[in-house]
Amino acid sequence: MFDMDAVERSAREAKAASYRLQSLSQVVRNEALQEIASALMQGADAIFKANEKDLADAEKAGLAKPMIKRLRYDRKKMEETVESLRSLVAQEDPIGKVVSRTEMDEGLVLERVTCPIGVIGVIFESRPEALVQISALCIKSGNAVILKGGSEAIHTNEALAKVIAKTISEVDERFEGAVQLLSTREEINALLSMDQYVDLIIPRGSNQLVSFIKSHTKIPVLGHSDGICHTYVDEKADLEMAMRVCYDAKVQYPAVCNAMETLLVHESVALAFLPAMADLYNRAGVELRGDEGCRSIVEMKEATEKDWSAEYNDLVLSIKIVSSMEEAIEHINRYGSHHTDAIITSDEKSARHFMDEVDSASVMWNCSTRFADGYRYGLGAEVGISTNKTHARGPVGLEGLTIYKYRLSGSGHVVADYAGGERKFTHRKLL
Amino acid sequence: MFDMDAVERSAREAKAASYRLQSLSQVVRNEALQEIASALMQGADAIFKANEKDLADAEKAGLAKPMIKRLRYDRKKMEETVESLRSLVAQEDPIGKVVSRTEMDEGLVLERVTCPIGVIGVIFESRPEALVQISALCIKSGNAVILKGGSEAIHTNEALAKVIAKTISEVDERFEGAVQLLSTREEINALLSMDQYVDLIIPRGSNQLVSFIKSHTKIPVLGHSDGICHTYVDEKADLEMAMRVCYDAKVQYPAVCNAMETLLVHESVALAFLPAMADLYNRAGVELRGDEGCRSIVEMKEATEKDWSAEYNDLVLSIKIVSSMEEAIEHINRYGSHHTDAIITSDEKSARHFMDEVDSASVMWNCSTRFADGYRYGLGAEVGISTNKTHARGPVGLEGLTIYKYRLSGSGHVVADYAGGERKFTHRKLL
Repeated sequence: MFDMDAVERSAREAKAASYRLQSLSQVVRNEALQEIASALMQGADAIFKANEKDLADAEKAGLAKPMIKRLRYDRKKMEETVESLRSLVAQEDPIGKVVSRTEMDEGLVLERVTCPIGVIGVIFESRPEALVQISALCIKSGNAVILKGGSEAIHTNEALAKVIAKTISEVDERFEGAVQLLSTREEINALLSMDQYVDLIIPRGSNQLVSFIKSHTKIPVLGHSDGICHTYVDEKADLEMAMRVCYDAKVQYPAVCNAMETLLVHESVALAFLPAMADLYNRAGVELRGDEGCRSIVEMKEATEKDWSAEYNDLVLSIKIVSSMEEAIEHINRYGSHHTDAIITSDEKSARHFMDEVDSASVMWNCSTRFADGYRYGLGAEVGISTNKTHARGPVGLEGLTIYKYRLSGSGHVVADYAGGERKFTHRKLL
Repeated sequence: MFDMDAVERSAREAKAASYRLQSLSQVVRNEALQEIASALMQGADAIFKANEKDLADAEKAGLAKPMIKRLRYDRKKMEETVESLRSLVAQEDPIGKVVSRTEMDEGLVLERVTCPIGVIGVIFESRPEALVQISALCIKSGNAVILKGGSEAIHTNEALAKVIAKTISEVDERFEGAVQLLSTREEINALLSMDQYVDLIIPRGSNQLVSFIKSHTKIPVLGHSDGICHTYVDEKADLEMAMRVCYDAKVQYPAVCNAMETLLVHESVALAFLPAMADLYNRAGVELRGDEGCRSIVEMKEATEKDWSAEYNDLVLSIKIVSSMEEAIEHINRYGSHHTDAIITSDEKSARHFMDEVDSASVMWNCSTRFADGYRYGLGAEVGISTNKTHARGPVGLEGLTIYKYRLSGSGHVVADYAGGERKFTHRKLL
């Protein structure tokens, strides 16, 4: 049942809560996370029961096996959830950090301090554990959250959201309304239109979902719609290293956004590199699609224009021979998705140039694109990966859920005194 | 003459240039600014001549006096321009700062480094000096820029843009195409639709302009559409200080976004505060509009619901009596524009609470809202003031024109070694 008023009410409540959350101390926010962990364990049976209902409905509806697998929320998943909640408690507080402090004049001190963004709208697909994880990230960072999960997980999501909302309100009444759950698909459009209440949208799911959202809202979106990653094997590459890295970037786990989709090879090393590399790929079951130059060296399918902007997320790789690093950089900036791109070279100057001019969130030298990940980067909790050019880029940690405000404290200071030249600003950096 | 292809060509050229600009050193970018200063002085006559043409056209078209005044670009304005270019050269480089450095494992080092955003679209109204200023900010920060000025300044803008584009291309050919000028109103819509080329839009001008742009583009917009600023006089306020500060916030320069539009007064001090304050305001010619409580103390016009969300930008002030700080905070979060809001109190705890819960870019304690300004904050060059909740908030310096990328350098590192547990990440903070 779609009810625009209900969505607006949820959004308004979340906004009101977001103002109260601004004054919650780290202690209270962490206590809320601890209590959610306990409450989930205590309410496990009800949650599993709700999940069984979703699973039964999914079987009845004939959902695909992998989808049903993602939908399952069992004791093992819950233990992982609880574990991740506890590790989140241990994370440094992203809120209330004084980033800079300036004495503007005697007794007039300006601070820039990190604070929550406000209301985060999260749209995710089947995995119910995503609901807990993203709510927890929002609670840790003092944000209110409006959640919209997949309809196939509706009972599980409702059970989980209920436990979370109830628990945090018991920890501190300021949490009242801070976690809201929407349940119908139509409500997504309503949510996307509420830029007066929602400050940031985070879509977690397929490329199609992210693209749809990006083109249907005025609210800033944190996410990436494509992961078309390249590795460029330079004329000065250590070819043994190149083979090792290119193998990893394509084969280690091809279904993810940081896997390599296109391999660029400098013409001067193509003959020495491609046959052995193709052999490795063939043995791993990788389908190769090459330009004319490639196919004159190794037999493979023909790559068409479409292949250069394809995200296979599979054991498929397009290969192109380039006559210079400049050509490689141009190709990457033109066809890539500004996500993660690597160069293999033993020439430091070339590596620097490549990393400067390739306009991607992560640029790499002599290592696998697969490293582009919040956990591997050591960011702790991962909010997502962003290909945005503003706010947060690349793997995003809790910091991506924060912004800052300026706090200015005086003792009756007025601008007229400075405008008239009577007083002058000192602008002394204190921090 | 509107030509969609021409706009797209400009945007594409700017994008191509933006990739090359990523590798420009600070020395080259500063040299470009120096050379622009010289070239403007050398080409002054041609620029003044173009400006006289615009002025004559404006007179003929019967433009309003203040508009014609803003349009004028004479020797004095040019000297100010040149001065600001030189001070920009002296500013710290916002690009290439290594913000953090982490050893992920032996020989595998991750750096987060500031870099230009890419292509900035700037839409501004009559003042021609804005063209030079914003181009200079973009050049300093390594961004390409697409400029759209007011049609009444078309000849001046063309003359200025020509000097800038020519000069920087002579300094370094990588600047070719980095400064683009659009000239017709229709081209704005075309520009706003080019999210594949333009990374950020900065509107400089009226609230109407900013609002129009915010609702007609998918590109992130840096700006503020309203400045509805409040001062709350708390029950524990030093009333003499309150009078001084509230006078400044309204009267010192009412036409700007950081001037106070609504005064909130705690009921317990209203009787002691309002009559004297109203007297001061009356003498300064401020029209007061109060709620019922105010009008029972001082005679003034009635404030209607509309007044609480009005940005007068003039000597008009709405006043409301509140029964608690909570009510003041709620009023501000509800009716304000999240720009700048102040509390006058001698109670530190109340001040902290107010500054935490008021969801504004600048929150102030015992000082005038008029301080919210990039120059006063000591940011050096000011890009604008933002009421965004992501990327940049409040007065924005050069930093607002930057983002960061991750640079990962290894020596053949692959993810498979870590996924298999053979190797472990060290995540040692080096910076």
